[in-house]
Amino acid sequence: MTRIACAQIAPTLGAVAANIELSAAAIADAVAQGADVVVLPELATSGYMFADADEARSAALRPSDSAFDAWRSAAGGAIVVGGFCELGDDGLLYNSAVALDRDGVIATYRKTHLWDREKLIFTRGADLPSVLKTRYGAIAVMVCYDLEFGEVTRRVALDGAELIAAPVNWPLFPRPEGERPGEVITAMSTGRLNRVFVAVCDRAGVERGQPWTEGSVIIDPDGWVIADVGPGSGLTIADVDLSRTHDKTLTEYVDLFADRRVDLY
Amino acid sequence: MTRIACAQIAPTLGAVAANIELSAAAIADAVAQGADVVVLPELATSGYMFADADEARSAALRPSDSAFDAWRSAAGGAIVVGGFCELGDDGLLYNSAVALDRDGVIATYRKTHLWDREKLIFTRGADLPSVLKTRYGAIAVMVCYDLEFGEVTRRVALDGAELIAAPVNWPLFPRPEGERPGEVITAMSTGRLNRVFVAVCDRAGVERGQPWTEGSVIIDPDGWVIADVGPGSGLTIADVDLSRTHDKTLTEYVDLFADRRVDLY
Repeated sequence: MTRIACAQIAPTLGAVAANIELSAAAIADAVAQGADVVVLPELATSGYMFADADEARSAALRPSDSAFDAWRSAAGGAIVVGGFCELGDDGLLYNSAVALDRDGVIATYRKTHLWDREKLIFTRGADLPSVLKTRYGAIAVMVCYDLEFGEVTRRVALDGAELIAAPVNWPLFPRPEGERPGEVITAMSTGRLNRVFVAVCDRAGVERGQPWTEGSVIIDPDGWVIADVGPGSGLTIADVDLSRTHDKTLTEYVDLFADRRVDLY
Repeated sequence: MTRIACAQIAPTLGAVAANIELSAAAIADAVAQGADVVVLPELATSGYMFADADEARSAALRPSDSAFDAWRSAAGGAIVVGGFCELGDDGLLYNSAVALDRDGVIATYRKTHLWDREKLIFTRGADLPSVLKTRYGAIAVMVCYDLEFGEVTRRVALDGAELIAAPVNWPLFPRPEGERPGEVITAMSTGRLNRVFVAVCDRAGVERGQPWTEGSVIIDPDGWVIADVGPGSGLTIADVDLSRTHDKTLTEYVDLFADRRVDLY
């Protein structure tokens, strides 16, 4: 079994040192509870509601920045996936996520689908998410709005992802009474259509008037929510058997992948 | 506004004449309530739980069959979309849906993704659903399991579908207390990711021990259920503005279609 944790924290805009401290404490808490994979929100080191690129630049980090030492120190035996505001070697800003462990950075992913005013600040990533073969399974890292593109989620599932780990900052949208957030519905559908686990880590709090959905969830290959944080800051944990994702069949004659009409798409 | 109706009926296996009568009465009922588009279940003329191809063949119809006269007569000014067991000119059996009005058949679609034991009986359709330009808008007809392939639902949305009309027979799967059926969750996600309306007509009843989800729903471009039938036989109706689907934006800088990374897919 693999223990997955999502740490729904509330970063402070621009306060990188404080956010590193907050997120490292959340990692340490999850690891103390036995987590093997810890997912943090999008832009966990910087906050989200930048007024402009200059403000984002002042909170940007390189993956090699010593700020991530605190994450590595807290990681113990776990893998950490978290969002950060990246300054590229090309001098451009990216809305990125890093996967790392105590030994260093495993991979950095730059968000390929930029949401709303992010387009005024960040450059789109040039590569779709790859599937990372880690000691805790095959993990595809994507960021927030990427999840809304079936082209991407299907791709990583076909490429063998067992777990989609997605740092997000889901701005709060209205929804009918009793309904789950639309983004959660799509994450559930992603799980069941691809028979993968999906771990989404949202953020908490209100930033410059923007409330967040606080919708962190862990979803199983049947598409059901097996863990969630609920309102406010908090940690949610689920123990999962990632090998369940290897079987894409539902009955003797139903195979969600083999049944694709690749001759027609 | 366009009035859409889903008629969740309970056909009797193999009783074609009785099923035509039942479904024509449901069409007439919907039309009497002002429906412009009436959706019937998958295999509405035949029932579903065939033991083998011979049994299916004995309940098969050609689109030109006079049995459909009853649907045309009941249609009034409406367009009817309903599933039937098709005998092709090639002598093969197809799990098909017809779109027709009082003037005749508009199009026939043969299910491209066969579910489970359907593979032992039917031949897969050779063509993905097309988008029918009707006087009540651009309608994409697909059948049941087709809805579970984002490749198809995205395609028809990109091709300009305003409404996905889907006859289904959803076999009942267990689900956690309080959750919508997984197939409904995927239909909701389809609506919101593509900003299209989705009208799904399920069947009612138990056939050869198989219970159905009885999950007929009409979903709006935000992904919310705006009408449903609930358990048992019944009709549900929604008045919708199909032109809402022309706008794929959510904010000034968010466009669900323009934001696709077609350079990377």
